[in-house]
Amino acid sequence: MNNIKIASGEEYIDSLRNRKLKVYLFGQLVENIVEHPMIRPSINAVAETFDLALQEPQLASAISPFTGERVNRFLHIAQTRDDVVLQNKMQRRLGQITGTCFQRCVGMDAFNSLFSTTFEIDKKLGTHYHSKFKTFVAEMQSKNYVIGGAMTDVKGDRSLAPHQQSDPDLFVHITKRTSEGVYITGAKAHQTGCLNSHWLLIMPTIRLTENDKDYAIVGAIPVDADGITYIYGRQSCDTRSMEGGDIDVGNAQYGGQEAMVILENVFIPNQLIFMNGEYEFASMLVERFTCYHRRSYVCKSGVGDVLIGAAATIAEYNGADKASHIKDKLIEMTHLNETIYATGIAASYQSKATLSGAFMPDDMLANVCKHHVTKMPYEISRLAQDLAGGIVVTLPSEQDFRSKEVGHLLEKYLKGKADVSTENRMRILRLIENMTMGRNAVGYLTESMHGAGSPQAQRIQIARQMQLDFKKKLAKELAGIEKNKTKILVSEISDYFGRVFDVNV
Amino acid sequence: MNNIKIASGEEYIDSLRNRKLKVYLFGQLVENIVEHPMIRPSINAVAETFDLALQEPQLASAISPFTGERVNRFLHIAQTRDDVVLQNKMQRRLGQITGTCFQRCVGMDAFNSLFSTTFEIDKKLGTHYHSKFKTFVAEMQSKNYVIGGAMTDVKGDRSLAPHQQSDPDLFVHITKRTSEGVYITGAKAHQTGCLNSHWLLIMPTIRLTENDKDYAIVGAIPVDADGITYIYGRQSCDTRSMEGGDIDVGNAQYGGQEAMVILENVFIPNQLIFMNGEYEFASMLVERFTCYHRRSYVCKSGVGDVLIGAAATIAEYNGADKASHIKDKLIEMTHLNETIYATGIAASYQSKATLSGAFMPDDMLANVCKHHVTKMPYEISRLAQDLAGGIVVTLPSEQDFRSKEVGHLLEKYLKGKADVSTENRMRILRLIENMTMGRNAVGYLTESMHGAGSPQAQRIQIARQMQLDFKKKLAKELAGIEKNKTKILVSEISDYFGRVFDVNV
Amino acid sequence: MNNIKIASGEEYIDSLRNRKLKVYLFGQLVENIVEHPMIRPSINAVAETFDLALQEPQLASAISPFTGERVNRFLHIAQTRDDVVLQNKMQRRLGQITGTCFQRCVGMDAFNSLFSTTFEIDKKLGTHYHSKFKTFVAEMQSKNYVIGGAMTDVKGDRSLAPHQQSDPDLFVHITKRTSEGVYITGAKAHQTGCLNSHWLLIMPTIRLTENDKDYAIVGAIPVDADGITYIYGRQSCDTRSMEGGDIDVGNAQYGGQEAMVILENVFIPNQLIFMNGEYEFASMLVERFTCYHRRSYVCKSGVGDVLIGAAATIAEYNGADKASHIKDKLIEMTHLNETIYATGIAASYQSKATLSGAFMPDDMLANVCKHHVTKMPYEISRLAQDLAGGIVVTLPSEQDFRSKEVGHLLEKYLKGKADVSTENRMRILRLIENMTMGRNAVGYLTESMHGAGSPQAQRIQIARQMQLDFKKKLAKELAGIEKNKTKILVSEISDYFGRVFDVNV
Amino acid sequence: MNNIKIASGEEYIDSLRNRKLKVYLFGQLVENIVEHPMIRPSINAVAETFDLALQEPQLASAISPFTGERVNRFLHIAQTRDDVVLQNKMQRRLGQITGTCFQRCVGMDAFNSLFSTTFEIDKKLGTHYHSKFKTFVAEMQSKNYVIGGAMTDVKGDRSLAPHQQSDPDLFVHITKRTSEGVYITGAKAHQTGCLNSHWLLIMPTIRLTENDKDYAIVGAIPVDADGITYIYGRQSCDTRSMEGGDIDVGNAQYGGQEAMVILENVFIPNQLIFMNGEYEFASMLVERFTCYHRRSYVCKSGVGDVLIGAAATIAEYNGADKASHIKDKLIEMTHLNETIYATGIAASYQSKATLSGAFMPDDMLANVCKHHVTKMPYEISRLAQDLAGGIVVTLPSEQDFRSKEVGHLLEKYLKGKADVSTENRMRILRLIENMTMGRNAVGYLTESMHGAGSPQAQRIQIARQMQLDFKKKLAKELAGIEKNKTKILVSEISDYFGRVFDVNV
Repeated sequence: MNNIKIASGEEYIDSLRNRKLKVYLFGQLVENIVEHPMIRPSINAVAETFDLALQEPQLASAISPFTGERVNRFLHIAQTRDDVVLQNKMQRRLGQITGTCFQRCVGMDAFNSLFSTTFEIDKKLGTHYHSKFKTFVAEMQSKNYVIGGAMTDVKGDRSLAPHQQSDPDLFVHITKRTSEGVYITGAKAHQTGCLNSHWLLIMPTIRLTENDKDYAIVGAIPVDADGITYIYGRQSCDTRSMEGGDIDVGNAQYGGQEAMVILENVFIPNQLIFMNGEYEFASMLVERFTCYHRRSYVCKSGVGDVLIGAAATIAEYNGADKASHIKDKLIEMTHLNETIYATGIAASYQSKATLSGAFMPDDMLANVCKHHVTKMPYEISRLAQDLAGGIVVTLPSEQDFRSKEVGHLLEKYLKGKADVSTENRMRILRLIENMTMGRNAVGYLTESMHGAGSPQAQRIQIARQMQLDFKKKLAKELAGIEKNKTKILVSEISDYFGRVFDVNV
Repeated sequence: MNNIKIASGEEYIDSLRNRKLKVYLFGQLVENIVEHPMIRPSINAVAETFDLALQEPQLASAISPFTGERVNRFLHIAQTRDDVVLQNKMQRRLGQITGTCFQRCVGMDAFNSLFSTTFEIDKKLGTHYHSKFKTFVAEMQSKNYVIGGAMTDVKGDRSLAPHQQSDPDLFVHITKRTSEGVYITGAKAHQTGCLNSHWLLIMPTIRLTENDKDYAIVGAIPVDADGITYIYGRQSCDTRSMEGGDIDVGNAQYGGQEAMVILENVFIPNQLIFMNGEYEFASMLVERFTCYHRRSYVCKSGVGDVLIGAAATIAEYNGADKASHIKDKLIEMTHLNETIYATGIAASYQSKATLSGAFMPDDMLANVCKHHVTKMPYEISRLAQDLAGGIVVTLPSEQDFRSKEVGHLLEKYLKGKADVSTENRMRILRLIENMTMGRNAVGYLTESMHGAGSPQAQRIQIARQMQLDFKKKLAKELAGIEKNKTKILVSEISDYFGRVFDVNV
Repeated sequence: MNNIKIASGEEYIDSLRNRKLKVYLFGQLVENIVEHPMIRPSINAVAETFDLALQEPQLASAISPFTGERVNRFLHIAQTRDDVVLQNKMQRRLGQITGTCFQRCVGMDAFNSLFSTTFEIDKKLGTHYHSKFKTFVAEMQSKNYVIGGAMTDVKGDRSLAPHQQSDPDLFVHITKRTSEGVYITGAKAHQTGCLNSHWLLIMPTIRLTENDKDYAIVGAIPVDADGITYIYGRQSCDTRSMEGGDIDVGNAQYGGQEAMVILENVFIPNQLIFMNGEYEFASMLVERFTCYHRRSYVCKSGVGDVLIGAAATIAEYNGADKASHIKDKLIEMTHLNETIYATGIAASYQSKATLSGAFMPDDMLANVCKHHVTKMPYEISRLAQDLAGGIVVTLPSEQDFRSKEVGHLLEKYLKGKADVSTENRMRILRLIENMTMGRNAVGYLTESMHGAGSPQAQRIQIARQMQLDFKKKLAKELAGIEKNKTKILVSEISDYFGRVFDVNV
Repeated sequence: MNNIKIASGEEYIDSLRNRKLKVYLFGQLVENIVEHPMIRPSINAVAETFDLALQEPQLASAISPFTGERVNRFLHIAQTRDDVVLQNKMQRRLGQITGTCFQRCVGMDAFNSLFSTTFEIDKKLGTHYHSKFKTFVAEMQSKNYVIGGAMTDVKGDRSLAPHQQSDPDLFVHITKRTSEGVYITGAKAHQTGCLNSHWLLIMPTIRLTENDKDYAIVGAIPVDADGITYIYGRQSCDTRSMEGGDIDVGNAQYGGQEAMVILENVFIPNQLIFMNGEYEFASMLVERFTCYHRRSYVCKSGVGDVLIGAAATIAEYNGADKASHIKDKLIEMTHLNETIYATGIAASYQSKATLSGAFMPDDMLANVCKHHVTKMPYEISRLAQDLAGGIVVTLPSEQDFRSKEVGHLLEKYLKGKADVSTENRMRILRLIENMTMGRNAVGYLTESMHGAGSPQAQRIQIARQMQLDFKKKLAKELAGIEKNKTKILVSEISDYFGRVFDVNV
C-alpha cells in the first residue's frame, strides 16, 4: 500500500497484489488471491465500486468535508439526507452491475456510525476518539482504500455473554494494554470482503455490560497486520470457478467473499483506537451501525433486478412468455423487489442529523426494510425457479456441451425457442441456478437473512420503537375510554411520532 | 355557501346546513344530513381536516402560489416533492385522529392530477382548460371548500366499453351541448364524502377511445346542482349509530361516507369544463389521479396505528400482554403497517415535476404502496381479532349492559384484569369490531381493496413500468450472453431506470 | 320437552316453543325465541341437521350401539374411523346448506370426548361416571335432543388460574355439595346455539391443579334449569333481520347464535354428574374435546364452498368472469378451502380407538387443520371481496331499491351484465357482505379464529407432539454425527411416529 | 440382469454392476456408475427401498394379486384405498431415512396409472395392451426390478405442440414401424434415477391431438437397450462428493439423480408396447399418472422431518433453543410439513376404484397436496437457514478443519455450546446447507416445484375440478336468487361432490 490514491478498478486490483496475507483455503496457504480463480470474482465485484465512481460521479462519489476533494461515496460521511438516499441508489446500481455482493457497504456503514458514536462518547466522557477517527477517515479517503467493518464475533454459546463463555476468546477482546496501544485476540466470522479490503475496523458485536469491559474495543488495523489468519469460507458451488469454463459458474465475473478473520494478539496503536472500555457505548455503536446497514440491503433490489431479468429471459427462451401466469409472476417478483427498494429509500429519506452532524436513517423503517429482505428474495428466487423449469437443476455440464461425443445431442435437445441458441439458454439457466442455489445465492438469500442481524433482531428493534403507549391512547380516545380528548400537538410528540410527523421534510 | 372562507371544523359543519340536497336513505328523503345520526360521524371526520390545519399549519396547510395565502393542504397544488411527502404525513395523522376515512383526499388528488393534465391538453391542442382550472382552484382555496372527486362510474358490464353498454348512461356522458355549456347524465358509484363536499369534480373513469368521445368530460358542479340525486350507501352495522348509545357503535364520533350520485341532465357551464371530448387524455388523467391516489392510502397506516393500539389495549385488559406470541403479533402488525407508510413515503419522495410544475409521485412505488394496502390491513385486522378473543363477536348489547335486570351480571362476568373497568373492556372490543367487521371496516378493509383501483389495476400498472428489457439486458450481460458489455450511463437510461437512479435527490 | 323422538326440522322447531327460558336481548326479556326475527335464522340452521339425517341417513345418522336404533350422527359415539370421517363429510354438507354455523358440533364432540374420558377416570379411580354418562347418551339419542357443550368460561384475567381470580365465579365452580348433587355458579361465554339446545353439558375449560378442585365439574343440565340467565350476543349487522326485507340480510334463512350463559347456583343431580373434583382429568377432557372439535372446523370448507360460489357468481354478473386473474383467484380460494377439508379428513382418517372403544382423531393433524382455519377463511374472504368490487360495501338499502322515488334509478344504475337482474346482483353482493363482514362473518371468520381454541393454542399443541428428539436423530444420522446408525423399527417407535407409520390403515 | 429376484439393498447394488450403459458426465464416458463417488449416493438411496421392504414388510411390501407373492410396494398395483395410503407412509419413511429422493416413485405411479389406462383403452378400442402390461408387471415383480418412468420430453418451444416443433425429435416419437415392433427417437429430460433402474417405461408427456399420433407411444425398454445415451445432470455442489471428505458433502450417503435420456431409434418389441397411436388416451394417462404422482410428494414431509430435526439440532448446538421465536419457527416448520402429509394422506384415503380395479387417489386433493409442495419446502428451508445462522454459508472447508496449520483454530472458534464438539456443529451445518442450497436442495426444493408438473399445472387441474356451477347454486339458494330450493341428494351429485360426500368411506 503506497501513498497514491486508487483511481480505477484496475488500480484497485493492482493494489491487492503482493501483500503478505496469511489466507487458508482447502487446507492450503493461498499465494496470490488476485489470481485465484475462486477468489478473483469477488475482487472484480469490489473493483466495480471504483469504476462506477468514475463513470457516475454524482451517484457514487461525493465531496468530502474533510479533504475538500471528491471521494468515493463508500468512504463519505453523509452530510445530508440526500447523501443517505444516494447510498441506496448507488447500492441498487451496483447490485445490477454485479449480480452479487460488492462488499463495500460494511465499511461505509461502519464509518458513518463510528463518526457519530465517537462524537457522543467524547461529548459525554471527554475522550478524544472523534478527532482521531476523523483523521483516519480523511486518510482513507485520500487513498481511496477499501474498509472492512469487522463486527460479528464467532459468539460460541448464544445464551451466554462474552465474559461467560467457556473460552474468553469467543468474542474479540483486549488481552494486553501498553502505553502504545492494545493487543486483541479472538475471531470475526463471515467477514465480507475482508481480503479485498485494505483496512479493517474492529468493533464489538453486541450490547456489553461492565463485566465485558475488555470486549469494548474499536480500532483500525491493516489487513496484513501481524497475528491475523484468514480462513476462506466455502460457498455453494464454489469450486465451479476452478473447472475452467464460463457457463456452469453462472456468473463468471462476479462473486461474493466471506472469510473468518482470526486475531492472535494483534496490536492496535493508540491513534487508531476509537473505543477502549466504554462498554456502555457498545449498544449505541451496534444499533447505529445496524440502522445504516439494514437499509443498505437495498442492494438486493439491484440483484433482484438481475434475477427478474433472468426469469423473463428464460420464459422467453422457453416460448412461455405470453402465458398470463408467467406475466403475473414477473409482476409479483417486481412488487416484492420494489418493496425492498421503497422501504430502504423511505428509511434513508427520513434521515435525521446526529449530534455530530452526520445523517442517520430512520431506524424503524431501516428495520422494516431489512426484515423484508429476510423473506422477499427467497420468494423472488422461488418464482425464478418456477419460471426456469426443472432443467435449471438437471442441466448437464459445460464439458458435456463442449464434448465431441455428446455436445451435438445437447445442442439439439436442449433447444428451446427455435431462434435462440442452446448455449444462451444454458447460460441463463446457469445464472438462475447461481443466484437461487449456487454461489450468489449465498449473498442473495442466506446473507440477506443474517447480514446486519438475523430476522429476530429486526423484530426486537421494531418492538422497541413501536410506541404502543401512543397508539393505545389513540384507540382509547376513539373508543370513548379517554373522554377528555386533548389533541396532541406534533411538537409535543417528539418522543412519540416525531419521526413520522416531522414537517421539516 | 357564502363568500366567507371556512376557518374551522365547526364553521365547516355549519356550511353544510340548509342546503337543498336530494339525499335518499332507507327509502326516505333525508331532511338534514348534519343532524342525521348515521351521517353525522362522517361529517365530523371531514371537520378534523379543518381543525388540523389550524392546529398544525406546517403539516396540514401550505402557501398557495395562486392566492399567496395559506390554504388547506387538501386544496394545495404540490410545488415540491416535500409538498407531496407532507400530504402523506397529514394523511397518516388524520387516520390516527379519526380511525376512519376523512374523505378529502380524492379532491386533493383530483386537483393535482387535473392541474398537470389540463396543462398538457392545452399544450398539445391549444385549448384553454388550464387557466380556467387554475381560476377554479384559487376560488376553492379562497373559500376553503371541500371538493369531491367523482370518477368511478357504475360501469355495467365490465367486459364492455362505455359506448358498448346496453344502456349508454352506465358511464357518465354528455347528452347535450349548448353554447353555454354541456348537460351530463349517468351515475357515479361509491362517492366518498360526496354529501360532505361543496363541489364535485366529474371525471372519466377509464381509458377512452374515439367512440367514447362523449364520455370524455371533466367539469365542476356544486353538490346541490339541479338534477342530482344522492342515494346513501349502507355500511356494515350502520344503524347502530341510530340506537342511542355510544358503546356498540365502536367509534361514536367518526365514520366514512359513500353514496351513489345520480346525474340527470346536469348542466356544466363552459368556464367550469376542463375536458370536453379529448378522449385521448382520459387515460393520462386517470393514471395521474391514481398515481397520487394510490399512495394517498398511506392514511391507512394512521388507521392501522389506532387498531394496533386497540389490540395492545385489549391484550393488556385481558391480562395477556406479557405472552411472547402476543408481543410478536403486535410487532408483525407494526411491520406491515410501516410497510404501507414507507412505500407511500418513498413514492412521494421520488416525485418529479410535471410540465405544469406540479409535482407527481413515482408511479411504480405508488402502485406498490396501494397493492400492499389491498392485503396488509386485512392481515392486521385478522391479528387484531386474534388478540381480542372471541368475545369481540359475542359481546351482549350496550342496552343489556345498561339494564337493571342483567347489567350487574355483565359487569361481573365481562371483567378482564381486576383493575380495568368492564365498560372500558367493552368499549375497546367494540372499537375492534368496528374496525375489523363493522362500520369502519368498510373503509379500512374493503375500500382499501378497491379505492383508487382494485388489486389487478395495480398489477397492470406495475407491469407497464417494470422495464423487463432493461432487466433482461442486465441478466444477459452477467450470463455471458451479451459479451461486449458496455455499461449504460445513468443519463442514458432515463427511459429505463431514470426514476431509480435520478441523482437530483 | 316430552318423550317423543324429534323426527324432523319442523318438529325440532316445535320442541323449542313454550319453554321458560330467561333470555335477554337489547335489555329486554325475549318472550318467544322461535318467532324472534333475529334469533329464528339460528334455529333454522339447527333444523337442517334433523332434515339432513332424514334425507341422507348414511351421511347424517348412524346405528347407536346403545339403543340399536338409527340416531342422528351428532348424538353418535364414533365406533370406527369411518364414523369420524363421516362427521366431517356431514359437517361440510351442512356448511354448504346453511352458509353458517349449524351449532350442533360442540355437543357431538363433547359426547365423544366425555365418553372416553369418563371411561378412563373410572378405570383409574374406580368411579362410575362412564355408565351414568352412557345412560345419558342413550336417553338423548332416544329423544334426538340437541346438546350444547358448555366449556368456555369467561376467564377474567388470562394470566391467573381459576382459584387466583379476584372473583372466584370467573370460572364455573361448585358452590355447594349435597347428598343429591352439586350446585354450580359462574358463566360460560360465547355459547354456540345454547338457546337452541335441549340440554347443556357443563365442562371445565382449562388444565386444573389441586387448588382448582371445585372447578373440576362436569354435568348435564336442561337448558331451562333454575338459576340460568342467557344474555344474547350481538353480531355484526344483527338488526338487519329486524328491518323487514330479505335482501339486506344477505342470508335470510340461516344464522349463527352465541350467548352468554350465567349460572347462579344451578343444581346438578348425582346421576348427571360425570366429573366431580378429579382435576387431574380436566386436561384430558379439554385436549380430547379440542382434538375432535378442531377438525370439526371442516364445516368451514362447506361455508367456503358457498362463498366461492358467490364470488364466481358476482364475477359473472359483473361480466368479469373471463379475466385470467379472476379465474386464478377462484382457484386460489379453492386451493385454500380444500386444504381445510383435506387436513380435517386426514385427521379423522388417522383416528385411533381409545380405551373406551370410541375413535378419536389424530391430534397433530386436527391441530394443523384448525390452525389453517384461523387464517384461510380470512384470505378466502378477502379474495371474495376482491371479486365483488367496491359496491359490496356501498350498496344502497333494500328500502331504497323498493322505493317509488329512487327504486328505478337503482334498477338502472346497479345493473351489471345486461341479462342479469339488478335485484339478483344486489342479492349476491349482500350475501358476500354477510359472509365477509356481516352476520355470518362472525362464524366464518372470527369464530373460526377462536372457536376450539385460539391460534396459539394450536401452536402449543403442535409443539407438544412434534417429536423433535426423533427428528434430531434422523438429522444426526444423515450428518454423520451418530455413526452407528441402527434403523428404528416402526414397531419400536410407537412413542414417536406410530401415528404416521401405523400400517393398520 | 439375471433371473434371480433381488432381495436386499446390497443385491440391488450388485445388480447394477457390469452393465453396458453409455453414460456421460463432465464430457467423459463413465465406466462404472456403482463406484463413481458422485453417482453412488443416489444408488444408496434406491437401495434403501429394498431394505425397508425387508425390515418393514407391512409398510413397504404387499401381496401381488398377479404372482401371489409378497413384492416390493413400489411394484404393487394398489388394490385398496389402504394400499394407496400405505404408499404415502412408505414414502415419508424413506424420506426420513435418506433425506433425499429415493427415485422409485415414478415407476410405481407409472405402473398404477398404466394399469387402469391400458384397461380402458382395451375396453374402448378392443386392443390388448392390458394383458401384455400385466405380464410385464408380474415379470418385474418376480425380479424385484427398479422401474424408471420416462415421461418428460425436452419440449423445445413450450408454445408449440409436438408436431409443430422445428425439430420433430423434441418429443419422443415413433420413427419406424415393423411387424416386430416400433423404433423411437427423442429425449427425456430430468429422468430421476434412470441409471439406477433396470427398465424404463416410455410415456407421452402431454395431451395429444391427431396430428401428434406418432407421439402416442408407450412401451418398456431395458436401460441398456441399443441406441440410448445418458447424459448426467449437474446438481448444486455435486463435485463435493469427489473431494474425499465426508463433512462438506452434508449428506455423505444419499443423493438424488437426474439424467437426460437420449433415444436414437431405440426398438420396442410388440409385447412391450402398451399404447401405439391412441393419442386420445394420452391425456388420460398423463392425468392419472400425475394424480398418483402429485400426492407421492408426501415423501417431502419425510425429508422435511430431517430438516426440522437438523434445525432443532443446530439451535441446540448454538445455545439458542430456549428462545421463544426459535420454538415458534420449529412449530411453523412442523405445521407446514404436516400440511403436506395431511393433504397427501387425504388424497390417498379418498381413493376410488378405477374400472380396472386399481385404486386411484382423489385428483383435487392430490393437486392441492402437490401445490403446497411447490411452496412449503421453500419456507421450511428458509426457516432452517434462519435457525442455522450465517455460518451455514461461510463455514470453511473440511480440509481446513483437518489441516495441521489452521484446524485447531477452527476447532476453537467454531465452537458453539461448550459440550458439543465443533465437528458435530460443522456436520449439522453442512447438512442444512446440503438440504437448502446444496445437492439435496435440488430434490427438496426445485424438484418439489417442477416434478409431477409445475405449479401452474396444478392450478389448471384444480380449476377443472372446482365445480363452480354447483357452488354458484349453493350461493344463489342462500341469497334468495333461486327461490324454489330443492335440496340436492348426495346420490344425485356424483357429478358434483360425489368425491366429498361419498359415504362409502
